[in-house]
Amino acid sequence: MAGGILGVEHGIVLAPMGADVAGPELVAAVVNAGGLGLLASPVNNYEETVKAIRAIKKLTNKPFGAGILLQFDNSKTIKAIYDEKIAFMQVYWGEFPKEKVDEAHKHGVKILHQVGSVEAAEKAVAAGVDCIIAQGVEAGGHIIGTVSLMALLPRIVDIAGNIPVVAAGSITDARGYAAALALGAKGVCLGTRFIATKEAYAHEYYKETLLKYTENQTDRTDLYGRASWRAYVRCLTTPFHEYWKQQPDYDTVVNDDTQPIIGHMTIYNGDKE
Amino acid sequence: MAGGILGVEHGIVLAPMGADVAGPELVAAVVNAGGLGLLASPVNNYEETVKAIRAIKKLTNKPFGAGILLQFDNSKTIKAIYDEKIAFMQVYWGEFPKEKVDEAHKHGVKILHQVGSVEAAEKAVAAGVDCIIAQGVEAGGHIIGTVSLMALLPRIVDIAGNIPVVAAGSITDARGYAAALALGAKGVCLGTRFIATKEAYAHEYYKETLLKYTENQTDRTDLYGRASWRAYVRCLTTPFHEYWKQQPDYDTVVNDDTQPIIGHMTIYNGDKE
Repeated sequence: MAGGILGVEHGIVLAPMGADVAGPELVAAVVNAGGLGLLASPVNNYEETVKAIRAIKKLTNKPFGAGILLQFDNSKTIKAIYDEKIAFMQVYWGEFPKEKVDEAHKHGVKILHQVGSVEAAEKAVAAGVDCIIAQGVEAGGHIIGTVSLMALLPRIVDIAGNIPVVAAGSITDARGYAAALALGAKGVCLGTRFIATKEAYAHEYYKETLLKYTENQTDRTDLYGRASWRAYVRCLTTPFHEYWKQQPDYDTVVNDDTQPIIGHMTIYNGDKE
Repeated sequence: MAGGILGVEHGIVLAPMGADVAGPELVAAVVNAGGLGLLASPVNNYEETVKAIRAIKKLTNKPFGAGILLQFDNSKTIKAIYDEKIAFMQVYWGEFPKEKVDEAHKHGVKILHQVGSVEAAEKAVAAGVDCIIAQGVEAGGHIIGTVSLMALLPRIVDIAGNIPVVAAGSITDARGYAAALALGAKGVCLGTRFIATKEAYAHEYYKETLLKYTENQTDRTDLYGRASWRAYVRCLTTPFHEYWKQQPDYDTVVNDDTQPIIGHMTIYNGDKE
């Protein structure tokens, strides 16, 4: 078994899956099992972030972390993370320069920067981060890069020096973990695999659907979230998705307020349509 | 070091890169170094295939193989392979059912079937092939599938039973080899890495270009070969390719006789424009 990362027993990281799939229960379960759990932080919300962090603290005494999307202003969430003095902060989808890393370190928070390219990894190295997560294009959820893990990971390891590199993308079992170590990583970051758990805050129907879909039934698309954040995600090729792919305006349609409301969900304490 | 495959010392396979990049010199060099060399066979041409095979036999006494594209009628090339009694035939891009595998075995030829999906691997298992090459979408040249090697390989290993599986796609060094073994493969198949050799029959300019391009500078496209065979390949994002990508008719243009001739090359003994 590998030696773990950043003082954590196992080199297994829980991806901070939004909106709140990686909530307090899942983070605590991973942490208590010896992994590095990352909370999906509420977006730029001090009170909700404090609340979620304190919920985790009730469930575990071990160190844990939280993920931040650099795409948005998250200063309030970051302040909550620093005030609550948690061990790790994962940053993604943007730059996090040396001044910011230094500030995190002053608060005793170690930085894991998730990247999808060698160029972004070089910037993270220069900024002095504590860990780089190399995300391959086969990853689920938001994917910032276009390169497969097999090609990307060794290239990032080559420039990371002593900074531990964690592999993300389509890893689901011990074989993937061992392969990542062979490619030079010190650990692995899993998202989708952790959705199919009791602790993940995802709909039961989605958890069951995950078990039925195969490696051949995903798609990289920027269809979703175009109204607020046009970014690529890897999703399941559900009948809903396949329907949209066949529409003539697939490339241009925006899920703004002109679209009909098709569902309702609760994320942390806020309702969304 | 791994134990090799199909009686060959090392589990390293030379991809039969067309048109004749993997020609007699490269095949012999790989075979003499303890790998499994696969010739890029001339398309449906008995005489040229015999000639190429005999050229290899002059350079090595060890067993070797040849690759066949199932997309085209290759009965004349296959006859040459059987008549010359070489050890291996790699088949790709189509079905190769049990009757055909049995026929190959009667001629003492072992079959390696390269696939890009679990479904195709299941058919190859049912046909009784001797080896399955699992090709990830990160591979160079023609790519039949859409799934990354990290996700595809263990799934194919799971259904292959005792049939050895070889991993193909973005493997360039010992780390990739070790990672493939960790995922359950018995060997690796390398193409692009072998182009950057003295023995590969590719233009010096292309060999030098390969060394300068990074993992971020490839594209999966069906732009090339639309006139005769519309299929996806992974190519370098050269200025020529980037120029074409920006054309308004990129999705529909066909490289037929209405297009200007931009170059001239010799493949085996035939000239092409």
